[in-house]
Amino acid sequence: MTVISVTPAAAALAEVPEGSVGYVSPEYLTFDEPLALASGQVLPAYTLAVETYGTLNAERSNAVLICHALNASHHVAGLDASQPDSVGWWDNMVGPGKAVDTDRFFVIGVNNLGSCFGSTGPVSINPETGEPWGASFPLLTVEDWVRAQARVADHFGIQKLAAVMGGSLGGMQALSWSITCPERVGHCIVIASTARLSAQNIAFNEVARRAIITDPDFRGGHYYADGVVPTHGLSVARMVGHITYQSDEVMAEKFGRAQRAPGPDGRFHYNYDVEFEVESYLRYQGEKFSRYFDANTYLLLTRALDYFDPARDHGGDLARALAAARARFLLVSFSTDWRFAPEHSREIVRALLKNQREVTYAEIDAPHGHDAFLLEDPRYHAVVQGYFDRIAHRLGLAARSRTAGVLA
Amino acid sequence: MTVISVTPAAAALAEVPEGSVGYVSPEYLTFDEPLALASGQVLPAYTLAVETYGTLNAERSNAVLICHALNASHHVAGLDASQPDSVGWWDNMVGPGKAVDTDRFFVIGVNNLGSCFGSTGPVSINPETGEPWGASFPLLTVEDWVRAQARVADHFGIQKLAAVMGGSLGGMQALSWSITCPERVGHCIVIASTARLSAQNIAFNEVARRAIITDPDFRGGHYYADGVVPTHGLSVARMVGHITYQSDEVMAEKFGRAQRAPGPDGRFHYNYDVEFEVESYLRYQGEKFSRYFDANTYLLLTRALDYFDPARDHGGDLARALAAARARFLLVSFSTDWRFAPEHSREIVRALLKNQREVTYAEIDAPHGHDAFLLEDPRYHAVVQGYFDRIAHRLGLAARSRTAGVLA
Repeated sequence: MTVISVTPAAAALAEVPEGSVGYVSPEYLTFDEPLALASGQVLPAYTLAVETYGTLNAERSNAVLICHALNASHHVAGLDASQPDSVGWWDNMVGPGKAVDTDRFFVIGVNNLGSCFGSTGPVSINPETGEPWGASFPLLTVEDWVRAQARVADHFGIQKLAAVMGGSLGGMQALSWSITCPERVGHCIVIASTARLSAQNIAFNEVARRAIITDPDFRGGHYYADGVVPTHGLSVARMVGHITYQSDEVMAEKFGRAQRAPGPDGRFHYNYDVEFEVESYLRYQGEKFSRYFDANTYLLLTRALDYFDPARDHGGDLARALAAARARFLLVSFSTDWRFAPEHSREIVRALLKNQREVTYAEIDAPHGHDAFLLEDPRYHAVVQGYFDRIAHRLGLAARSRTAGVLA
Repeated sequence: MTVISVTPAAAALAEVPEGSVGYVSPEYLTFDEPLALASGQVLPAYTLAVETYGTLNAERSNAVLICHALNASHHVAGLDASQPDSVGWWDNMVGPGKAVDTDRFFVIGVNNLGSCFGSTGPVSINPETGEPWGASFPLLTVEDWVRAQARVADHFGIQKLAAVMGGSLGGMQALSWSITCPERVGHCIVIASTARLSAQNIAFNEVARRAIITDPDFRGGHYYADGVVPTHGLSVARMVGHITYQSDEVMAEKFGRAQRAPGPDGRFHYNYDVEFEVESYLRYQGEKFSRYFDANTYLLLTRALDYFDPARDHGGDLARALAAARARFLLVSFSTDWRFAPEHSREIVRALLKNQREVTYAEIDAPHGHDAFLLEDPRYHAVVQGYFDRIAHRLGLAARSRTAGVLA
């Protein structure tokens, strides 16, 4: 185990907003013990980028692990000290007085193994070759991530996490924690997620992968040496993703059929440049993504999504797959989420109830589709806050001292 | 006007199935009068590929024009004499004794202007340059198609069509006929269609276009001379399309999470080759499409979809846009169609009722998503058959002499 801490850039530290955990910097934890993967391959060593917020109590009982979705990272909350305008991806959820209250809980954010924000992945140097792993980086599963993350808990001396929590792919990791390490999870919080992708879900992932792999600049995944990036393929992949994250309703409300820069008298331009606002938005999102996200990582993450199916080793019976779980559960879904519609969550709830597990389930009537799990919604955040109040009560943690964000 | 008829290949004419119109061949109608387009451009002359089935009666009152959707053609019914295994795309709907009964009606199929199956389009030679039009072919609108098709009716000496009918983009053309040429349409049959695309619809079209345009083999739309085709882009575009044509439910039923060629003990292969059946299906559809469909045509057709919005010139008020219509209407939608969900049809129905139009509306509870309009469903076909029986009765045509297909 090696720990490298990066000193924040002292410059440009603006005022920290109310309810923020403040300026944060990642630690880089390196684990030298080999990790056996579901694929049969073995990763000899790996590094994980980690951020923490709040204070681990003496009993080490107040830790909350937050798992991220496709394109996020360990930077869950606060302001990145090296890029002061970079707010954590779940900052509205995590902070002093927020739903996941860092006055009471010690929160851990970890960049997934195989991702591209500081953890070992396809962009890392393969020590055996001295070159980036690229396409030869081993494929990973959600279970591999859980085993890799368990060593982060070990590092902090945490035997049992108060909670493991995540949305979308992060929720799949939380669910897998409850099966893979049942004794180490007090509460499992699964938001806008699923116990297995549908054929339609896999189909959209496959479109994204084909766009990337057939981009000539992908070069079989070994594009780093040539100084190129499959920008076009990544961009198309992200555009497809974005459509599936939003509801038809919210796209109608945000963009409708508004024209971007109409000609005289509102005329169309009759070409294939941006004509409608929604096209401009999608192109912008695609291009932005292609500048910061690694193509091999995108392939790896979407494939891990496809493979996740804990019921598979139990004849397709999710209740049997969850029989080992010992945690209490909170599940949240959103009415207009058509990527992982509420029925995906209800299936998990039914399987848990068959096992006499204690389950809280909230189906939030929200217009924002799958993206709702990342947005501020008072009913949604109140559900999570109430649940964490119960966790704190069970653990004998101090009562909430303040309330911030939408909950204030 | 020039008419070229192609003689069918006499060889390999197999037995014609019951209810089929038999072996058919297209005519190629050339119109030398310039066509003024919505874009402001003028097409000096154009050819349309046309097929007809049944016999035009002496009063010329029994003609039905069938408009096609994105990737179809004039070959609506029967067997193409030059490719005997090529069955028309709506053969289950059109034929002797079928819902659109060619014993009583004279049915016209026409390949859209700008398409790639014999009508003038980007693959045609621009007489001014002696080269294929390619990307310089003018963009078209649904209204342009209607005006181009009206000359087909003129050619046959048909003043008023008994019906104009289509599904999806074809339904948009039928709707536009009722506004653009109100006195020439007796009945307007709009199936699984819409009066305007939603932001989400446009977004999916834009993904498809970006995949094509950013394929290096697209070469700005002038790929013909180089003997290349943007195969990868077209393939991704088609894959996206296919997902939107099917419901989540029917994909779950057809493919689920079935593996294509599982390893020993059902193991995954842990790579990006085909792992799931649904991936194999989508890749096959994409590759097949990229071999027969022209990329510039795909761009043009999706853009025409985006632009269609008859309410636009009436302050967004569809009822005002439809005030000119004189036809009777049949609208059909399908419960699981999420591309053009039933609400799109209901909006048209409400606007027609505001105008005191006679409207029949059927919402079919079918599992197949948008594709349902092409499939055999006894309830759906019975609705269409019943409607055509009423048309025949109004026109004083002979009673149905036989019943074929799912209706038998």
